[in-house]
Amino acid sequence: MKKIKIGIIGGTGGIGRWFAQYFQKEGLEVWVSGRRSGPDLPTMARECPVVIVSVPIAATLSVIEQIGPLMPEEALLTDFTSLKAEPVRAMLRASSCEVIGLHPLFGPEAKTLAGHNVVVCPARSRKWLPFVLDLFRKGRARIIETTPEKHDEWMAQVQVLNHLNTIAMGLALKRSGFQLAELLPVATPAFEAKVEWMKKIFGPNAGLYAQIITHNPFVEDVFENYQESLRELKKWIRRRDDEGLRKRIEQAGLFPAVRMKEE
Amino acid sequence: MKKIKIGIIGGTGGIGRWFAQYFQKEGLEVWVSGRRSGPDLPTMARECPVVIVSVPIAATLSVIEQIGPLMPEEALLTDFTSLKAEPVRAMLRASSCEVIGLHPLFGPEAKTLAGHNVVVCPARSRKWLPFVLDLFRKGRARIIETTPEKHDEWMAQVQVLNHLNTIAMGLALKRSGFQLAELLPVATPAFEAKVEWMKKIFGPNAGLYAQIITHNPFVEDVFENYQESLRELKKWIRRRDDEGLRKRIEQAGLFPAVRMKEE
Repeated sequence: MKKIKIGIIGGTGGIGRWFAQYFQKEGLEVWVSGRRSGPDLPTMARECPVVIVSVPIAATLSVIEQIGPLMPEEALLTDFTSLKAEPVRAMLRASSCEVIGLHPLFGPEAKTLAGHNVVVCPARSRKWLPFVLDLFRKGRARIIETTPEKHDEWMAQVQVLNHLNTIAMGLALKRSGFQLAELLPVATPAFEAKVEWMKKIFGPNAGLYAQIITHNPFVEDVFENYQESLRELKKWIRRRDDEGLRKRIEQAGLFPAVRMKEE
Repeated sequence: MKKIKIGIIGGTGGIGRWFAQYFQKEGLEVWVSGRRSGPDLPTMARECPVVIVSVPIAATLSVIEQIGPLMPEEALLTDFTSLKAEPVRAMLRASSCEVIGLHPLFGPEAKTLAGHNVVVCPARSRKWLPFVLDLFRKGRARIIETTPEKHDEWMAQVQVLNHLNTIAMGLALKRSGFQLAELLPVATPAFEAKVEWMKKIFGPNAGLYAQIITHNPFVEDVFENYQESLRELKKWIRRRDDEGLRKRIEQAGLFPAVRMKEE
């Protein structure tokens, strides 16, 4: 039986490289192209019946517009972008082949696929969907099928809110004038954990997070909610009112199970 | 040799109970009093040469004012409060005995003392300081000696900023209308980790965190820094400017080592 060839555009770094290794272990033939290495796009489209676009968000649309028209009708064009609505629309527009949007919800530091979430957005899919699902299921990923629009709405909370939260803390810390070297010897486990997340976002991949945030169609709503929350908090802090603050936190009822146990 | 008796006021719950067990294992006799159980304060002061106040922040000053005058001059009065300036001042004022402020920088979920940070603020100490240091060193805690004022300044970042950050995210999430049950199947490891911290603060101990925040003398500065950071972020988000946001994150230079590696 002939091995299926998978082409990964952007497969020399980050999550693209991670999956290149994973697919190889799963018995597929993987062709990888980076910005300055590997086969060119016409070769990828001609040789690989499945092509994955795994490049930075800001470059995704342009790569899709180049590869899309080159893909034969019976092929599958897919992408690993952290956003789905715009890339999937672009893939449908640029190609006549099958189109499935994908988003592996983890970074290249993951050891295995097991237990990690992967969002699958079938857009124009016939024969390739079972193949894709099977490929992720083999590694025991948890698959969530949804629309590109719903995906982006979820990611506004899961990624945009979360990263904005980490950046806000980092910038406020910077503004305090304290160096981390001074604070780490008096850190709590919670503070240390936050510092680890800050280290990720304030590190060499800052551009990735900046794109995840600014390109999400719901970013302004998320930011508005965040500012509103701060406005609310201000009241209790100004009054030094710990009882008021406690009640506000409890009333949020974020974890109903915990609350019920208490009542 | 007679065992040294340590009295813990508030030793029936939280970190007080944790240390009651730790001290017992270290060969000390521990007397514990809760709100509705254990010996009364005059008995504690008479029987225990070392008394630790480990009650909620809002109750600390009143307990210190009651126990302080009962303590014999050769005894040690100390506390585990998450703030140090006010409790230490109160202990000095209320007693004529030795006074050392303490803050174990971890919660009762810790398995051992090893590697955890403990702040020690000697205020009026002669013979008892070596005993106290030794007690924590035996369990391989990392000890940081400082003034109560410096402690509170550090905790404004380590605890107040950190908890405000977690609460801000929780309230913004609430405001989004999404339930955690819907988001967890599409969570990233980073989001899951944040949810775990939210669970702690939005749980039964919300009052503890509300007190740590509102009683810290530097809370308004922290909040001001936080709001300023958001105001800054707003600019890049409004303009959907990922390059601007990336540069801002990188310019913060929170982790100089990481930056140097990149250059």
